[in-house]
Amino acid sequence: MAYLNENYLKLQSGYLFPEIARRVREFCDRNTAAAKRLIRCGIGDVTEPLPAAVIEAMHKAVDELGHRETFRGYGPEQGYDFLRQKIAQHDFRNREIDVSDDEIFLSDGSKSDCGFILDVLGNQNRIAITDPVYPVYVDTNVMAGHTGALDKNGRYEGIIYLPCRAENNFVAEPPNEHADIVYLCFPNNPTGAVATRPQLERWVAYAQEHKAILLYDAAYEGFISDPGIPRSIFEIPGALERAVEFRSFSKTGGFTGVRCGFTVMSKKLLAQTNDGREHPLHRLWYRRWSTKANSVSYPVQRGAEALYSTEGKAQVRALIDHYMGNARVLSEAAKRAGLPVYGGKNAPYIWVGTPAGLTSWQLFDRMLQDLNVVITPGSGFGPEGEGYFRISAFNSRANAEEVARRLESAAF
Amino acid sequence: MAYLNENYLKLQSGYLFPEIARRVREFCDRNTAAAKRLIRCGIGDVTEPLPAAVIEAMHKAVDELGHRETFRGYGPEQGYDFLRQKIAQHDFRNREIDVSDDEIFLSDGSKSDCGFILDVLGNQNRIAITDPVYPVYVDTNVMAGHTGALDKNGRYEGIIYLPCRAENNFVAEPPNEHADIVYLCFPNNPTGAVATRPQLERWVAYAQEHKAILLYDAAYEGFISDPGIPRSIFEIPGALERAVEFRSFSKTGGFTGVRCGFTVMSKKLLAQTNDGREHPLHRLWYRRWSTKANSVSYPVQRGAEALYSTEGKAQVRALIDHYMGNARVLSEAAKRAGLPVYGGKNAPYIWVGTPAGLTSWQLFDRMLQDLNVVITPGSGFGPEGEGYFRISAFNSRANAEEVARRLESAAF
Repeated sequence: MAYLNENYLKLQSGYLFPEIARRVREFCDRNTAAAKRLIRCGIGDVTEPLPAAVIEAMHKAVDELGHRETFRGYGPEQGYDFLRQKIAQHDFRNREIDVSDDEIFLSDGSKSDCGFILDVLGNQNRIAITDPVYPVYVDTNVMAGHTGALDKNGRYEGIIYLPCRAENNFVAEPPNEHADIVYLCFPNNPTGAVATRPQLERWVAYAQEHKAILLYDAAYEGFISDPGIPRSIFEIPGALERAVEFRSFSKTGGFTGVRCGFTVMSKKLLAQTNDGREHPLHRLWYRRWSTKANSVSYPVQRGAEALYSTEGKAQVRALIDHYMGNARVLSEAAKRAGLPVYGGKNAPYIWVGTPAGLTSWQLFDRMLQDLNVVITPGSGFGPEGEGYFRISAFNSRANAEEVARRLESAAF
Repeated sequence: MAYLNENYLKLQSGYLFPEIARRVREFCDRNTAAAKRLIRCGIGDVTEPLPAAVIEAMHKAVDELGHRETFRGYGPEQGYDFLRQKIAQHDFRNREIDVSDDEIFLSDGSKSDCGFILDVLGNQNRIAITDPVYPVYVDTNVMAGHTGALDKNGRYEGIIYLPCRAENNFVAEPPNEHADIVYLCFPNNPTGAVATRPQLERWVAYAQEHKAILLYDAAYEGFISDPGIPRSIFEIPGALERAVEFRSFSKTGGFTGVRCGFTVMSKKLLAQTNDGREHPLHRLWYRRWSTKANSVSYPVQRGAEALYSTEGKAQVRALIDHYMGNARVLSEAAKRAGLPVYGGKNAPYIWVGTPAGLTSWQLFDRMLQDLNVVITPGSGFGPEGEGYFRISAFNSRANAEEVARRLESAAF
């Protein structure tokens, strides 16, 4: 008799975003008029077209595949050198971070990478995760059997939750207890919080003390404009030996539908066996990709490469400026509506307290029904998200301004 | 202290194809003249350009992403309906197989899927795998901790190996012992063997008797020309309840660098918990994709869709005819060279016995040095592959003919 992975049965019903999609679909089916004025600030999906440099590069790559002389089949399983080199050079070495080309591993996006990384880590690790958090970190650990059951407070046994609240500016300090693996995400999804250099230094010191590994999700680093805020965990001395960084072209290059991201893993990062022998995790991660994948579609890799050209960089800058302009419009409106507002400064997400007495999902339903605006309920990101909601700045300016008007006119 | 997944340390050094690439690279570095006449019949990578219908569809999709009105971000995590519908209709329902659109799950290729499927299966399953075999089936099970150590015969403890030899025409019969999960691949990589309907019926009967699941890799089904040979395990009554099928556009549409494949999982397929409760595996597989992925690049999905158009089908047919023409040329040459030859009839792989006294890797090195032809050593596919080598028919006709000439002139 074939057995299933019972850990899946511990999962809360419905991954957050499909659940939102379901509620929106039902609402639209019942309210065709309201459906027409619906504005989505929920899933955090980009809305603006791909940069022209990407379009041009992808067309060229598609044409190459149409001719025998320039056709390419299987590429290197960890990604083509032309892209790994650009990434390592522009994102790291140009910023005095010692990352070599072969420490870059391409993938179809950070969402996948956050799950894949568990392939090479032991099941005995003690896992610490901030709360609220991108649900993928928790759910992939549940699936891998690293947790017990869900408790009545919405927490899984066996995970160390690190509360992120208004009183700590939504940036958790290292805990007093031991953890082997810690998930950190800055700029943060969902709260839009960023970590200062001293805060990240304390995390690296913690990782050194505990010989822990930081899984550092920097998918939103492109939105940091404050020069004092680190854009990579590797800006902190010692972090190459203690962290894996996740990066994505989804929000910078508008690649949510194109799919490309990468991990950065230094060959200096060690993890240990049960009997205390240390090995570079890089060797396992390399093998994981060799055995389980054939890397990213060739035209996509060429598209991503174009983001590093002079034109590409300028076009990405314009996209980010556009979305951050929306973030200002939306933040201001939420403040004028009398709500407590966080994030939205170095991040495309605005984290807003719900009006008194409303839970996150109640606010979600109210926004959907009364304002015809889709937001993301904070509680979908973890118990500490209850009483908040997330507004995404990924939209047209016209939509952002319309959402701002509706927010200000709302009778909260 | 962060722990690594120690199961990786059990793996044999070097995944097969990177190891071949390494030896070829070293040879070419030392022999620049010979390197120029090198012909690769090793990795099984396609050589002909993408079908024109695919090129056109991908260009159109890239253009859509370049305009706000037609831009698409995140797609459905299991794939777009436009493609799932085409697959279910053309590959299954048109052949009287009852597969619904939502039983198709898109991915970046079968190689990934073969690893991913273990996500939703329990670790207590007894695994049976044919030998020789595509190394990914074995290696992903080693990584997942489903095996013990490698023994001195090159087999991992805990796996039931099903020998495929000349005497059973390289098609294993169901074993006398119990297995929960069985990997089957027809047309077979590496042997080029195909299973007859009665042989597959015996496998489905075995799966019914043992409540086992067959993981059926049909990546090469497009190469079957014999109308009596099943192209899908689901042609066998009862198989929808007992099998998952893996399909790929890599070899039919030339997608090895474009990356797209899919799994077919019926909602009728059940697997059980430790205490005997049965659940549809579909629910877990759906959740796996929702939580861990954002599906395949949009232009790639549009490219795959084009393979189902009238023009696309004709272009795929022409590609397959081309490669199967090579297979005939190469098979004949190997026979004329006095070697025992198998496969190559309904499959793009030719499985050849090595000349007396030569191991697979010795033959590999000899072919590389004397004929400047890269083949795949049979022992790279498992202990039962020792004494064989695989020639891939994926090449230009000119190259296939040149390899044929060199083979015939070889002093084996």
